[in-house]
Amino acid sequence: MHIGLIGLGRMGGNMRDRIRNAGHEVTGYDQNQEISDVATVPDLVAALPQAQRIVWVMVPAGEITDSVVTQVAAQLHAGDIIIDGGNSKFSDDTRRAAELAERGIGYVDAGVSGGVWGRENGYGLMVGGPDDTIATLMPIFDALRPEGPAEEGFVHAGPVGAGHYAKMVHNGIEYGVMQAYAEGYEILAARDDLIDDVGAIFTAWQRGTVVRSWLLELLVKALNEDPDLDEIRGFVADSGEGRWTVQEAVERAVPAPVISAALFARFDSRQDDSPAMKAVAALRQQFGGHATKAAADG
Amino acid sequence: MHIGLIGLGRMGGNMRDRIRNAGHEVTGYDQNQEISDVATVPDLVAALPQAQRIVWVMVPAGEITDSVVTQVAAQLHAGDIIIDGGNSKFSDDTRRAAELAERGIGYVDAGVSGGVWGRENGYGLMVGGPDDTIATLMPIFDALRPEGPAEEGFVHAGPVGAGHYAKMVHNGIEYGVMQAYAEGYEILAARDDLIDDVGAIFTAWQRGTVVRSWLLELLVKALNEDPDLDEIRGFVADSGEGRWTVQEAVERAVPAPVISAALFARFDSRQDDSPAMKAVAALRQQFGGHATKAAADG
Amino acid sequence: MHIGLIGLGRMGGNMRDRIRNAGHEVTGYDQNQEISDVATVPDLVAALPQAQRIVWVMVPAGEITDSVVTQVAAQLHAGDIIIDGGNSKFSDDTRRAAELAERGIGYVDAGVSGGVWGRENGYGLMVGGPDDTIATLMPIFDALRPEGPAEEGFVHAGPVGAGHYAKMVHNGIEYGVMQAYAEGYEILAARDDLIDDVGAIFTAWQRGTVVRSWLLELLVKALNEDPDLDEIRGFVADSGEGRWTVQEAVERAVPAPVISAALFARFDSRQDDSPAMKAVAALRQQFGGHATKAAADG
Amino acid sequence: MHIGLIGLGRMGGNMRDRIRNAGHEVTGYDQNQEISDVATVPDLVAALPQAQRIVWVMVPAGEITDSVVTQVAAQLHAGDIIIDGGNSKFSDDTRRAAELAERGIGYVDAGVSGGVWGRENGYGLMVGGPDDTIATLMPIFDALRPEGPAEEGFVHAGPVGAGHYAKMVHNGIEYGVMQAYAEGYEILAARDDLIDDVGAIFTAWQRGTVVRSWLLELLVKALNEDPDLDEIRGFVADSGEGRWTVQEAVERAVPAPVISAALFARFDSRQDDSPAMKAVAALRQQFGGHATKAAADG
Repeated sequence: MHIGLIGLGRMGGNMRDRIRNAGHEVTGYDQNQEISDVATVPDLVAALPQAQRIVWVMVPAGEITDSVVTQVAAQLHAGDIIIDGGNSKFSDDTRRAAELAERGIGYVDAGVSGGVWGRENGYGLMVGGPDDTIATLMPIFDALRPEGPAEEGFVHAGPVGAGHYAKMVHNGIEYGVMQAYAEGYEILAARDDLIDDVGAIFTAWQRGTVVRSWLLELLVKALNEDPDLDEIRGFVADSGEGRWTVQEAVERAVPAPVISAALFARFDSRQDDSPAMKAVAALRQQFGGHATKAAADG
Repeated sequence: MHIGLIGLGRMGGNMRDRIRNAGHEVTGYDQNQEISDVATVPDLVAALPQAQRIVWVMVPAGEITDSVVTQVAAQLHAGDIIIDGGNSKFSDDTRRAAELAERGIGYVDAGVSGGVWGRENGYGLMVGGPDDTIATLMPIFDALRPEGPAEEGFVHAGPVGAGHYAKMVHNGIEYGVMQAYAEGYEILAARDDLIDDVGAIFTAWQRGTVVRSWLLELLVKALNEDPDLDEIRGFVADSGEGRWTVQEAVERAVPAPVISAALFARFDSRQDDSPAMKAVAALRQQFGGHATKAAADG
Repeated sequence: MHIGLIGLGRMGGNMRDRIRNAGHEVTGYDQNQEISDVATVPDLVAALPQAQRIVWVMVPAGEITDSVVTQVAAQLHAGDIIIDGGNSKFSDDTRRAAELAERGIGYVDAGVSGGVWGRENGYGLMVGGPDDTIATLMPIFDALRPEGPAEEGFVHAGPVGAGHYAKMVHNGIEYGVMQAYAEGYEILAARDDLIDDVGAIFTAWQRGTVVRSWLLELLVKALNEDPDLDEIRGFVADSGEGRWTVQEAVERAVPAPVISAALFARFDSRQDDSPAMKAVAALRQQFGGHATKAAADG
Repeated sequence: MHIGLIGLGRMGGNMRDRIRNAGHEVTGYDQNQEISDVATVPDLVAALPQAQRIVWVMVPAGEITDSVVTQVAAQLHAGDIIIDGGNSKFSDDTRRAAELAERGIGYVDAGVSGGVWGRENGYGLMVGGPDDTIATLMPIFDALRPEGPAEEGFVHAGPVGAGHYAKMVHNGIEYGVMQAYAEGYEILAARDDLIDDVGAIFTAWQRGTVVRSWLLELLVKALNEDPDLDEIRGFVADSGEGRWTVQEAVERAVPAPVISAALFARFDSRQDDSPAMKAVAALRQQFGGHATKAAADG
């Protein structure tokens, strides 16, 4: 099989390698010409088998994805297929699929998990779209997914949007799981009078325990490299899926206290000073004459 | 009536004034001799009517209270009464009352709310102890509590410990209520593209709305003095009662998500960097190659 | 002044009374003909001063509001004004205002707080719209708002949408404040070995304390009527603003742990059984052989 | 080696098997005589090598553990060792160790994770105590821990108490991780219009994804057995460690929003009706005339 792949960053670049290693042909395009196989998107489309062009878009979510999909679609005709493998919002998929369907172009949304380890381990895949389009793409999905039973690393989750929906929830869970480990880390670290070596405890949790997981192994790796995490600041970005998970939970009246707490902890981590806590400090000063820290105290 | 009062800080000093204004006699002692009526605790006890000495202890909670109560009790005899008006833990009251009872000394725990405004407005009082001891002290409680129906500013909550228990829960609620306003403040402040003047909105909530309260009025006062709270840092102490409320809720299997969230927000506000969020940042770096902020970046 | 008022339910009916009591004329319409002043919306519009028709729409939020606004607007011409006083989402206001502006019809969004007590106490008002339109409507706002300084019960919060935005945040705060009292109530009620009478404690918090508020007074009223709340189930609806507040907080990266916890507690309260907790129970059974309750155990 | 083991329930019984399979001798005692090797605790002690008796206590935490430890200790002499492998509170360990030390009896606290799978997979072990005592016990720990590098399934966490402290935090993390998956489950299940088969998605997360873990595999197993969890109620017990984790976090001023939210969700799951939500419903009725559900509505 021969597909086009747009976006050759941390994810896309490794995916190109993994698909090629499986024996398929990939023509990749990236704004960075040094890693790009072709000079332009039209060049990429021109390089693909003309009977049915398949283009996997692997760029950050949001407006950029829309712009790239529009740009690619302009070069395609009926029967061709676009896959959005980025972290798009599931509701964007429905809109995009409808627009492309007017011109007969197929659309599949693919949630891709695994990070920088996917090249070697394979990527967990959650896809949404029509059965026949998914069937056409199976060789590529098989190349990308991990070794082992297909159903343990790949799922056709439902119609268009279902892939990104499943990936969104996956990431929401990921936020919660990471925060649970992180809180445990901080509680252990607070007791250096009792606990000899926090890293040794996480290390020992890798076999036999209830909390063993891949994320735990990564935390062990991080603690081995930097035992007190002195080299890193507690500043954590969020990329959209956590927010959408909470907003969707709210929309559906699903209680999501853990996932939302994990999300808010990230928001907190990025604030130099908290307007809310300024208000609480101001209130305490008003009723109790409690001393506050002047902003200038830093 | 004539009582002794130990501790003449922000709370005790104002209480002395209010009790005196009601026509009672108060002999006050404080480590700070400039504001103290007597030189020593024994002097204070000696100055009181010898038939029945009543000493109100108004010092910070914890070991200091125990030490002062012990010091005072050494000067007292059977039939005398000690009131602990500080923010002691309710379980300490039971212990203290039992110790004093062995020598026939009465003990009452009094939760006192109202902050620096209590001198003028009166103090909300929640007390615990035996009926007859409470009855003896009613003139003082009546002097301290606000004008209006007694039951709207004073409660005999139960046996020893019940007063501080009620005060503990009061403060737990206070944490939650303050945080609710604070979050609302931050959400409004985040939309300066839409909301002209956040302070004007809080001002307008003072009459007719569901959220009107004394704390709201204090926030309006604070925002009048410093419209963007530029002069204050979002650094908020906690004094024990919030922690005990959460610990007691956990002990009793009572879900307390709001009070605990408010408490944790205070903990967060005092951390220069969060060990937990360092761990989350480290995890993201491990699996996704996500950039982190070096500790040195500040 | 003479205005039209559509929707004469718990809120609208009382508002009609209050505006009339202030000396203005109100023509009210409701689907319920028994309380309606006119038979149809066109009749209502026909009854108003033809120079400038002012129609206040006071119906539940959502599609009904859109439908009523459309129906009213069809009867109006340039220079007339529609006020949406329901709990609409602020983003709907922008859209509606733009649509009406094409035909020269003015639009103001008004957040109205105060519940069934507003008729007597006045309503807290937060409005959004152009200065001149607001100025035209001031006599009505003055009739509705509580006695006292105007700025303590009324705010022109900003352009169209700002009124409902402020009301949304008001309700988000309300959720948090109510939940804080409620958690305190449950913690006190869990200690009937220590606390004699939970209602007496809330009663005593009405004067002098830091947590005194109008909501507290209402809780005292409820506890007087039903001391153990035996007559009421812990089943709590939510009407949209709490959800939007959380979604907006998430959108703006504002941590809102208290307001979201209060919202999730309401979601929880309405679930007969929790799918999430089924999953946790299933997990415990899998790893620990812990007994679960069969669904049939009820 | 030959040790005594008291408590042959789900955990103890399997541990006896695993230690025996490793070539050691175990004399087990249980109140249930059908599974017990000896009739009484004195019989058990008598059966052990008299030079140094080693008794592993594997009973539920709390008063029972204290009672069994006291009962065993009465049969031991200086140089013997007791291991508490239950889920005791770390602060109990310090007290017990001190009491036993007066008589020269050694004490080790062992946190044991792995549930019913430990017999086959081995148990994750976290132990606290003096180096030489731990060294003596290593053959037993090696028998119990999983295959693989020792440090990945066993840790000497620190002095007495450190083992149970680490296990406590382990379980706190476990609460948070389970709740994260559970919330994700409920969000997916809420969208049966989009998601074809929730179980298939969890199944597909087992390879390649960031959230893959042993708990995830167990959830897949549970969903295979009961795809909609129809056979199970969302009623979840808690066994102490989660509570202690939150209380300890509060004591140490460590924000633990995720672990506490997971704990509170369990509390919620066990309430037929929530006193707190009754209070919220009562408040809404008071200010808004909102309908409530009568308790009798069930």
